[in-house]
Amino acid sequence: MASIDLNCDLGESFGNYKIGNDELVIPVVSSCNIACGMHAGDPVVMGRTVDMAIAAGISIGAHPGYPDLQGFGRRNMDIAPDDMYDYTLYQVGALMAHCKAKGARLAHVKPHGQFYNTAAVDMPLAEAIASAVHDLDPTLVLVGLSGGCLIEAGKKAGLKVANEFFADRNYCDDGTLAPRSMPKATIAGESYAVERLIKVIEEGKLISITGREIEVACDTVCVHGDNARALQFAQKIRNTLTANGINIAPVA
Amino acid sequence: MASIDLNCDLGESFGNYKIGNDELVIPVVSSCNIACGMHAGDPVVMGRTVDMAIAAGISIGAHPGYPDLQGFGRRNMDIAPDDMYDYTLYQVGALMAHCKAKGARLAHVKPHGQFYNTAAVDMPLAEAIASAVHDLDPTLVLVGLSGGCLIEAGKKAGLKVANEFFADRNYCDDGTLAPRSMPKATIAGESYAVERLIKVIEEGKLISITGREIEVACDTVCVHGDNARALQFAQKIRNTLTANGINIAPVA
Amino acid sequence: MASIDLNCDLGESFGNYKIGNDELVIPVVSSCNIACGMHAGDPVVMGRTVDMAIAAGISIGAHPGYPDLQGFGRRNMDIAPDDMYDYTLYQVGALMAHCKAKGARLAHVKPHGQFYNTAAVDMPLAEAIASAVHDLDPTLVLVGLSGGCLIEAGKKAGLKVANEFFADRNYCDDGTLAPRSMPKATIAGESYAVERLIKVIEEGKLISITGREIEVACDTVCVHGDNARALQFAQKIRNTLTANGINIAPVA
Amino acid sequence: MASIDLNCDLGESFGNYKIGNDELVIPVVSSCNIACGMHAGDPVVMGRTVDMAIAAGISIGAHPGYPDLQGFGRRNMDIAPDDMYDYTLYQVGALMAHCKAKGARLAHVKPHGQFYNTAAVDMPLAEAIASAVHDLDPTLVLVGLSGGCLIEAGKKAGLKVANEFFADRNYCDDGTLAPRSMPKATIAGESYAVERLIKVIEEGKLISITGREIEVACDTVCVHGDNARALQFAQKIRNTLTANGINIAPVA
Repeated sequence: MASIDLNCDLGESFGNYKIGNDELVIPVVSSCNIACGMHAGDPVVMGRTVDMAIAAGISIGAHPGYPDLQGFGRRNMDIAPDDMYDYTLYQVGALMAHCKAKGARLAHVKPHGQFYNTAAVDMPLAEAIASAVHDLDPTLVLVGLSGGCLIEAGKKAGLKVANEFFADRNYCDDGTLAPRSMPKATIAGESYAVERLIKVIEEGKLISITGREIEVACDTVCVHGDNARALQFAQKIRNTLTANGINIAPVA
Repeated sequence: MASIDLNCDLGESFGNYKIGNDELVIPVVSSCNIACGMHAGDPVVMGRTVDMAIAAGISIGAHPGYPDLQGFGRRNMDIAPDDMYDYTLYQVGALMAHCKAKGARLAHVKPHGQFYNTAAVDMPLAEAIASAVHDLDPTLVLVGLSGGCLIEAGKKAGLKVANEFFADRNYCDDGTLAPRSMPKATIAGESYAVERLIKVIEEGKLISITGREIEVACDTVCVHGDNARALQFAQKIRNTLTANGINIAPVA
Repeated sequence: MASIDLNCDLGESFGNYKIGNDELVIPVVSSCNIACGMHAGDPVVMGRTVDMAIAAGISIGAHPGYPDLQGFGRRNMDIAPDDMYDYTLYQVGALMAHCKAKGARLAHVKPHGQFYNTAAVDMPLAEAIASAVHDLDPTLVLVGLSGGCLIEAGKKAGLKVANEFFADRNYCDDGTLAPRSMPKATIAGESYAVERLIKVIEEGKLISITGREIEVACDTVCVHGDNARALQFAQKIRNTLTANGINIAPVA
Repeated sequence: MASIDLNCDLGESFGNYKIGNDELVIPVVSSCNIACGMHAGDPVVMGRTVDMAIAAGISIGAHPGYPDLQGFGRRNMDIAPDDMYDYTLYQVGALMAHCKAKGARLAHVKPHGQFYNTAAVDMPLAEAIASAVHDLDPTLVLVGLSGGCLIEAGKKAGLKVANEFFADRNYCDDGTLAPRSMPKATIAGESYAVERLIKVIEEGKLISITGREIEVACDTVCVHGDNARALQFAQKIRNTLTANGINIAPVA
């Protein structure tokens, strides 16, 4: 039976500031990426989110980002790879402690926002993250953009990797994401998006933005619960996959 | 043979800001407390400091503080014990990851500044820290003010504890530190201070500020390397203890 | 004709984090207190909020707080009065610049959260704020808890002051707020609360929590727009005051 | 008589962290750029530094930077020009308040570090800063890299500008700084550097890195006091200029 992981970002609230509908999206997913306090999240939110993930029985991952709370980790920052090695250890370790204290296991690491985007195309940065994760715990799964530098760096470092696929985005002929600046970068029809996703999961293939059939690796799919519509789309993905006999389960 | 631990705070630099003479004080001590990024330190400094501690063969501890870089963790903050549980996990976990990645073991936890002071007199706060440390790793040693609440909370939680003694401070009849507001709160003569320290280590006794002989537990002594004079005093302590046949070694 | 100011806190969002319904509460009030980036708000939010306040024609004030974004300025911090003088200048100046650049005038200053609470009972802290505000611009109005230290310090410093009244809180016989720990600290009935408010505005008198008639100064009333119920109560206050011939207008 | 401004960055300490020898470099310069709390400095340091500048009678400027204390404002960050407009207002306003409270005038604005570098080559960013400064106070002088975008944007905005010259750096034929990656980017000989500076001040001309005589505008020269050697070089510049009959005075 085909199997796929559905992941979502959780624990992005900060102090008095609430973001996301963590309670509503948790039942949809099989794994979560919890913010670690640099671009979002704080120690108290992390503790509460780990509790929720444990209660729901979903797999827990760390979601390290750039140290830029004001920009939510979405602004590019030129941080040296050696420094990001240390930033990654710091953030993943902080979440790992929350898991350990609650008797849970940290299963994976997925960079956030601009850290994720840059790690997909910048090999020295990708290698720095992969080293940090491997040095900390070689059984951790490293999640990155399907076919990107982080996946390659993770494999080289001896880590198990998970290719992340975006259900609502078109892909270029070389298997990279169509840039948001391109027309049709985003897929409009939800039903078509889910059909395509099933084909990718079952066959590893999809029709690119230019109409050619290409291969794209897909181990995990990112869904969102920020707004009502994203949540509905996530639920539709889960329901349709399940109805098609695809198992929803963590990568690890 | 009597044995005592000498500890110092390390890794308090931040980004471009340098504090302390870490290289100079390391040879004097048997264990160190490394700042964890909330009141001082940052991920890069933490990585570098762990490397230095490993190279010197000294025991490594985490030095969590209040989230107040601007106040260096020295300003009191009313943070709920439950929240400090999470703040403690976060900080200790971040340092533990740096140790784990470098193949070193985190051995102890000692709160910093006002967090330390409050944990010595506020039992609910002390219990929260002790729980966090125990939940994370029950083999960690908890370091606190000799005879204070944190020591008691640590014991109750089932942790090994270390009573910290201040060589340059006078003590009241009940074994608590003489408040800095009192005349003679600080001991002026270095030689007398070291003689007294030897007696405390060997017999567990000292002459209080009122002239009575009292009992004070002493497992570890805090020394400083911030300035030339503190460093000299630290070296004098080490040399005199060694000359008196006292072994300098970590608690754990 | 009796006149009263209705004020609300605005601009408490931060980066990607949104708090409050600023657009909905603005039509209810005659003045606003804009967060200055330490406990809430950021430069971009400040600019956008000043624009909204100008468009609505309401009076603009600065809302400085403790430097504790994670605690939203609601945790007590022991910051020396001399330091709070500088923190106040910093925050008020930052907002003043946004006003000046848009051709608006900064009219008042009201401390936030725990800074507000402490300034109401701690005279040295209150004097430090009053000095900062006066040194910066002696025409600024200083807003504080009715009858509290900040009001007294503001008068002594030569500032115009505004006594803030809480419509939903009971008062002790000495004119201070009934602590939240007391039964009946909060007034349950909205209609009674508004009736009482009208009496305070028109006569400067109210019935204390023990049933005695006491005098309480009331120049401005704080309303909230955080949730639907608070917003409705605010609108009810405005409508009832207007229906009773009371003018809603800024203090300055 | 030829006149030139000597400027230095001041007030870069933060909380317990001290950077720079402000007391020693102040007697050398005619104007200073005070950090505003985002990349360095804090409200307390700002207040103390303004006091020192007033006592020394030097001209005071604001030194806004990117919001990255950990990177000291030296790491590039992709912040939208509209957002940097707000960040600039915030920082300059905060320092302006400290000046106003002490009866001093804020005279100029000079961006810091990577904000300075980017504003020299990125016209939309340069225009955003120039607008912020002009909207806040059109009498402020805008300081930027000689001949760079910020100078051009400042002129277009109607501001008085000051071209900053680096005494220890070589220049390309087009008047731009020789990149640090080039051999001979930095001038080795201090005496030659000072001779060249005198020629630039008196004639507006220098010999480029390729040996051609080119024109470079020079209104102000940046000196440093971070270490003993930088301080000596700064003193040598001042002494030699004075000995050559060149007046040391602020631009404004």
